[in-house]
Parts: sequence; structure tokens; C-alpha cells
Amino acid sequence: MKLNERGLLVVLSGPSGVGKGTVRKALFKTEKQKFTFSVSMTTREKRPGEVEGKDYYFVSREYFEKKIQEGGFLEYTYFCGNYYGTPLDKVEEALNSGKELILEIEVNGCRQVKEKMMDAVTIFIVPPTKETLYERLKKRGTESQYQIEERIKKANSEFGLAYQYDYIVVNDTVDNAADRIKAIIRAEHAKTQRSIYKYYEIVGDLENDNQ
Amino acid sequence: MKLNERGLLVVLSGPSGVGKGTVRKALFKTEKQKFTFSVSMTTREKRPGEVEGKDYYFVSREYFEKKIQEGGFLEYTYFCGNYYGTPLDKVEEALNSGKELILEIEVNGCRQVKEKMMDAVTIFIVPPTKETLYERLKKRGTESQYQIEERIKKANSEFGLAYQYDYIVVNDTVDNAADRIKAIIRAEHAKTQRSIYKYYEIVGDLENDNQ
Repeated sequence: MKLNERGLLVVLSGPSGVGKGTVRKALFKTEKQKFTFSVSMTTREKRPGEVEGKDYYFVSREYFEKKIQEGGFLEYTYFCGNYYGTPLDKVEEALNSGKELILEIEVNGCRQVKEKMMDAVTIFIVPPTKETLYERLKKRGTESQYQIEERIKKANSEFGLAYQYDYIVVNDTVDNAADRIKAIIRAEHAKTQRSIYKYYEIVGDLENDNQ
Repeated sequence: MKLNERGLLVVLSGPSGVGKGTVRKALFKTEKQKFTFSVSMTTREKRPGEVEGKDYYFVSREYFEKKIQEGGFLEYTYFCGNYYGTPLDKVEEALNSGKELILEIEVNGCRQVKEKMMDAVTIFIVPPTKETLYERLKKRGTESQYQIEERIKKANSEFGLAYQYDYIVVNDTVDNAADRIKAIIRAEHAKTQRSIYKYYEIVGDLENDNQ
């Protein structure tokens, strides 16, 4: 029995190249816990094969900007002439259905999420050593030495934002990292601040019920 | 790899009859995580067969009271003419060796522990329903109806202190409860406030190391 039936908003982030996407995929393979993700909203054109409500919610710029003004996004960004955002109402819907909502965000998006949703659980994924990450960034493509150095610089600056997150999870192996995240989610559900009201529902009338 | 190599002080408590002892025993059977316990210090007489440093540390009243004055106990109590306490230095020793130290305490001892050791992880074990606990208390012995009612009254008053604890764990089955506690311990090790210094040791010189 879980004391708290509402799902958790779990935010995954970490420096470029750390393997966030692979860890997320491993999480979704878990049978015991129910994970879901959030479909983003965007103002960019729908591409052939993309499905409304599955790949994105495709909306007009006017609609998106009105929604921003109404505070309707958990987080949003403007990139290459288009908006991308996570609609708050869809997040609430998923959490109220009791599922854990996994959100992968850019390193510097943590504060934006925490401002909107204080009880989000934020996890910063790190490599076991910095050399591991450098190796991964070097192997990733066929870029020039200059591009590789730029990536390493970016990762280095991202490392410094770990302190904004609730948890730091080492990605030594994908399965270990996913197991740590699952443990964090179980523990968060047991936190007194999350479960105390549900707990009082169960035992609340004890004082007058010495049967 | 654990970012934080120091063990955790894990405090288990809960209303009488909830099954704290059984859950603790299940924890100690775990192979992957290393658990230990703390030997208490007492002023009572050694009984035949008891071993110094294994069952208790047996000391004089003068020694114990001096240690109290020096703030040498994590928590202590006076019961039936004798002192019983958990020596702080032994706790530190266990934690520094990297083991998780499990401490079973009375419900109202939580504050005393938190005052001495802010980073203790405190867990309140509860029954799945209040009826479950009543049944257990009734089955426990051959006491009179009056004694059973007194026990239920005591349990009821203890229920109310759950809010002082960090986590509430439901003891629906012993294995489930032990699994929840193990998840809490893993999660606590990943908490940023515990692991950030170790993390900086690993990645600290990144800014100047764009190799």
C-alpha cells in the first residue's frame, strides 16, 4: 500500500553526454512502477508523420503566448524561432492518475520547474568520473577538435549546477542509475510531508476509538 | 559507486505492536547493504551469560552521569532505577566505517536524536490499518481486557507523533516494509546535501581542465 496515491513529478537532468535518455528508457521498462511522460506543446510546423497529441500538441503562436501569460506552462523555451513547453494542466492530469511523470529537461531549467511545482523531485545525473564523460563526448560524432572542446566546455559549465537539484545520481551503469532513481521515487512517496494527510485519514480517529 | 561513503544513522520507531523488531531483523538479512547496530550502555547489573561490549557496555552510575554531562549520548533514558543510553562515540565510529547504523527507539525519542544528529534518517513504521494493530496487540499475550485496553490507548497516543519523523513506512508485510526502508537508505545517500562535497571532489577541477 502506498500512503500517497498521487504520482510524482520526476525531473531528470545532467550535463550533455551523460546518458539521460538511456536512463529514462531503462526506467520505462520497469514493471512494478508506473511511469509516464509529458507531451510538449510547440508552435513549430507539424512534420510529415507526426501525430497531434502524441509527438507534440501543435498550436499557434497566439495560443502559446496567451498560455504563457496565464502561467500555463511548467517550463517553456524559445528555440530557433519557435516555442516549446510543458503544459501544466497535462502534468496535473498525469500526476492525479497516480503515475510517476518523468520529465527530461535542460540543466538550467530546474529552477523554473521548482518555482511552478515545489514538490517536484529533481535528479541530476552525473558520470562516475569526468574522464568517462569526455570519452563519450569525443566518441559521439565525427566533429572537429574545436567542436569537441566546445562540448566539453559546455558540459563543464553544466556540472556546476548540480547543487540546484534534490539528488545526484551516478550513471556508472544504466541499470544501476535506473535502480537508484526507482529507490528515490519509492522513498519520496514515504516522505512524511507527502504522506501525513493520507496517514491521518487511516488513523485519524484513533483518539476516540479505543475499541 | 556511492557518492557518500559515510554510513547513515537510521532510526526506526512506531507504535507498540507494529513489528519494529521483525522489520529490523529482515533488514539485517540483506546482502547488498551493510547494516550494523549500536550496543547500548547501562548502569544495571550484568546478568549471567551477558557479555561486556556485546549485550551492553556495563558502567557505573558515576561514569554514566559524567558522560551525560559531557553530552556523550545520542539518547538515553532512566528506567526502573537504571540508565540506558546510546554512546555517541560508538555511533560515529560505526558511521565512519561506512555501515548503516540501525537504531530502534521509543516513539518519543525522535527529537532527542535529531537534536544530537541532524542528519539522522528517522522512520516511523505504521500498520496498514489501525484494526491490524489492535488485533496484534490483543493476540500478543494472555493479558486481561484492561491491560489490552491500556496498550491500545498507548498505541493511539503514539500514532500522533508520526509528524516528527522523516518517513512513514507501512508494515503491510515485513518484506515490503524492509524493501521500503532499503529504498529510503539508497535515496538518502543520493541526496545532494549529503553527496555534493564528494561530487565536487570528483568533478571539482573541471573548469580548468578542458583537456
